[in-house]
Formats: sequence, structure tokens, C-alpha cells
Amino acid sequence: MKTNLPQGCFAMAVDMEIVCVGNELLIGKVVNTNASWIGKRATSLGVKVKRITVVADDVAEMAAAFREVLDRKPQFVISTGGLGPTFDDKTLEGIAKALNRRLTVNKEALEMVKEKYREIAKTRPILEDDMTPPRVKMATLPLGTHPILNPIGTAPGVKAIVDRTVLIVLPGVPHEMTAIFEASVVPLLKQSAGNVGFFELSIYADGIMESILAPLIDKVMHNNPLVYIKSHPKSKESSPHMELHLSTTGNPTDNPEKRLNRAALELAGLIEKTGGEVVKIKTDSPI
Amino acid sequence: MKTNLPQGCFAMAVDMEIVCVGNELLIGKVVNTNASWIGKRATSLGVKVKRITVVADDVAEMAAAFREVLDRKPQFVISTGGLGPTFDDKTLEGIAKALNRRLTVNKEALEMVKEKYREIAKTRPILEDDMTPPRVKMATLPLGTHPILNPIGTAPGVKAIVDRTVLIVLPGVPHEMTAIFEASVVPLLKQSAGNVGFFELSIYADGIMESILAPLIDKVMHNNPLVYIKSHPKSKESSPHMELHLSTTGNPTDNPEKRLNRAALELAGLIEKTGGEVVKIKTDSPI
Repeated sequence: MKTNLPQGCFAMAVDMEIVCVGNELLIGKVVNTNASWIGKRATSLGVKVKRITVVADDVAEMAAAFREVLDRKPQFVISTGGLGPTFDDKTLEGIAKALNRRLTVNKEALEMVKEKYREIAKTRPILEDDMTPPRVKMATLPLGTHPILNPIGTAPGVKAIVDRTVLIVLPGVPHEMTAIFEASVVPLLKQSAGNVGFFELSIYADGIMESILAPLIDKVMHNNPLVYIKSHPKSKESSPHMELHLSTTGNPTDNPEKRLNRAALELAGLIEKTGGEVVKIKTDSPI
Repeated sequence: MKTNLPQGCFAMAVDMEIVCVGNELLIGKVVNTNASWIGKRATSLGVKVKRITVVADDVAEMAAAFREVLDRKPQFVISTGGLGPTFDDKTLEGIAKALNRRLTVNKEALEMVKEKYREIAKTRPILEDDMTPPRVKMATLPLGTHPILNPIGTAPGVKAIVDRTVLIVLPGVPHEMTAIFEASVVPLLKQSAGNVGFFELSIYADGIMESILAPLIDKVMHNNPLVYIKSHPKSKESSPHMELHLSTTGNPTDNPEKRLNRAALELAGLIEKTGGEVVKIKTDSPI
């Protein structure tokens, strides 16, 4: 990674967008922890998450959003939500519309769903292994897309290749989403991103205002062009507590942690010299 | 509100999009509670939140996102993040680029920022009331936009009218964002949305699978066209715990709570009849 751009974590090669479907996210009933979980996990694998879009359980809204996202041609699009058996689970309909493809019952998906209900029927009353319309719905995919095994729940994930983009459609229930992600998405991301990793470190400083810190950050970023530094004020400017988050990406053989530590020590020194107090430096690697 | 469309909370007239700026949201370092807070607060005032977009601290990315959002012509756009004094606070630059307007020091904003530092200088060492470049930056707004008083922090919010859209730009620090929102945004939303409110209620049911619930929800929504029902599985299909979230909007004089309660009782009855157990009905209003 040879570049003079001070982009830190944002100099990664493989890019991703996340689409989260669900009225509950828009009305603030549910906090979008799926997006932050995916963001963190993908970043840890060296993937650059460029945008998160949250849309309603509405086919036209979804289709428009997916079209826009795919038009930007990220390498990966991960969507969550809207794969279940109820009327409001419309994500596959939205994607079919965005891709201008028919929805059809996918044999492989149907077998996956059937198998789930066969298992369930062993412990619950009769009729529950019937493939009712709500159950067949979970196996009804846009033409040319492929089901992904859901190791926990009933609705399979879905994978589609659209031009150069890999589109992965996951359920919204967090433990189902993370289970499919770990089993079936992480290997794809690793394959694409290679051995690039994300490294981060935080300096907690008291008594130095963000407006005083600003030129110090500029200076350290200028001297350490591969490290990105972002200030997170934890209180108001008049009695400042700050978190300075330093991050970089790179191949572990290039010693990105050393690079990070050098920048952190330089910034910590400047903070102390300017009257601030470095309270804590938090990192997994020794400084 | 006379309509036969079963849209519930999504039949509201005033619409909003939310834009959240910050790498920390994309890398999963910070969970986007700002978006859910705004979503909940706006919904409670009868506003329909249609989309949430999260973008990086990157001028080109932001400009593109703001352009797309404004092209959809929602009545309100609320953005959070990127108004501070450091280099990575680029939201006003992004908006200036999106609107094709120059950035200039706004006299009113400058006076607001100066006043903040005058106050701070009373309790902190000398030099801190100087208007250094990072401080002037917080008063440098796109031409034709207006500062909004920040009752807590130093960076003013910003308001712009773009065609029929009111664009409100808020800081990302949660307590500053909510303080400006309550003081300066809520009155605007109330004025636009009128006396429409959002009403919700949850039924918690055990022992009924989501795939069995699906046709029951369809039936109740058909019989109660102004009520929207969404199922939230809290466990796997084989040992189901479900939350059924019912919502509606309307003028309190039209008795929306009565409408909601009627639908809830119908659904609860069907759940019990189908072998499920209604564990709890949670509402602020008596059933």
C-alpha cells in the first residue's frame, strides 16, 4: 500500500455498501446494530464500507435504493431484513424489481426451507411441515439468484452477482444474520481483501479543547500519511474530554501497528506539550 | 385521513430523510443512535421518515449523497455529524459542493461561536477566546444558509431552504444534536405535520410460528386498513417468541388509539384461537 493520501482506514481496495430494510429502523423502534456489526466485521477484514442505506418495507422504495446502490458498483452489497414469511417481508420483491427479474420458487431454497420444517415438525404439532404459502414465500427468489444456507433460522440468505457486484441478502434477525455472515460471507470477503487488516488505537485526553487539538491532528496526520485520526468529543468544549481514534490498514507484514504507535506517541506528546492530559491509550498491541 | 391503503404509520403526509455523516458509523465504532433518536422523535410528531443514509467524512461522497437526497424532494432533510473544528468535519463543505454554493464566514454564526468562546475564556486560560482558524471554520457556512443556535456546544447548526426542502444540519455529538433538535427543529415539524400523532402498541405472543401468524396478520390488516402490523421474531421459528407491533397515525380527535386497540384485540383473539399464547399487550393507553 504505497500512497501519500492521508486516508488511513479509507485507503482500502475492496468496497462495500450496506442496505438495511425495515420500517422499525426508520421509526426508531430498533437501533441499527446490524449495520454497525457488519461495518465492524467487514472493516476488520480490510473492507471499506462506503455507505449504509436504510429503507422502508416498501417495494418501490427498496427497488429504487437497490438500483442506486448497484449503479455505484461497489464490490459487495450486503442487505439485511425482509426475508421472513409475513406480508411485510418484501426485500426479494424489491430486489427482483430493481434487477428486472421474475420471482420464482427456487428448488434448492425450497428444499432448505422444507428441511427446516421437517426438523421443527419432529417436536411440534402436525401440519407444521406443510409448505404453506408463507413458507414457500421464503424460497421464492429473483431468477438467477442462489440461496445461502441459514444455519439457525428458516429463511435462507440469497446471493446474486450483478455486473461486478456480489449482492448478499441476509435476514434481519441479528443472530441469523451474523451466523450466515460468518459462515458464508466472511470467506468471500477474505478471498477478495487478501491479507489486509484494520488496526486501531484510541487516545483519551482531558483538558484540551477540540479547537486546540485541530492543528495538532493536522500535523500528526501530515507526518504519518497512512494514519487517519478522528476526534470524538465526549463532553463540551469548555471542559473537554476527548477520544482521539487512530486507524490504519495494511498487510501485517508491513508493520501497520508500528506505524499507528508512532503516530499515537507523536500526538500524545503534542497533547501533553499543549497543556492537555493523556489519560489512557487503548490498544490491543503494546505501545 | 381517509384512505383504504393499509399503510398505518406510512400514510403520513410530511416526509423526512436523515443523513448521518461519519466514518465511525461505517466502521462500526459507533452505533447510529442519532438516527434512531431522530426517527423516533420525528415519527412521534406524525412525520414519515423515508430513508436514512450514512456516508463517510469525504466531501465527494457527501456531496453525492446530499444531491441524491435533495433530488427526491422530501419536505425535511436532517443531517448529523461533521460540524466541528477538526479537518475531518467536512459536512458544510459537502453541502456547499452539493448545492454549488460558496463557503463564506457567516457573521451571525461567527458571533455565536465568539460568544461561546467568550464564555469559555472566563473559566479557562488566555488565548482561548481567539478566533483561530478551527473556530472560524465552525462559522463558515454555504452561502445563503443560516446558523441555528447550539444551546450546549460551540458549533452552530445550519438551516437551508432548497426548493421545497428544509435542510437542517446538526452536530453529531448526541446531546448537542438533541438539544438543537428539541429547541429549533421540533417547532418546525409540529408546524408542518399539524396535530397528527403516531400511536403504537405491542402484542407479545409465545408458541405461534411466524409462518402461522402471517395469514392472521393479513386478515387483521385487511379488516383494519389504517393499522400497520409488523412481526418481530424474538427467537427461532421452532420455539417462537414474537412481538407484533401495531401502529397507526392520525389526529387524536379521530380516536386512533381506539382503532389500534380494536385491531390488537382481533389479532390477540386469533393468536389464542390458533394455539398461541398472548403473554403481554404493551401500550400507554388502556385496552
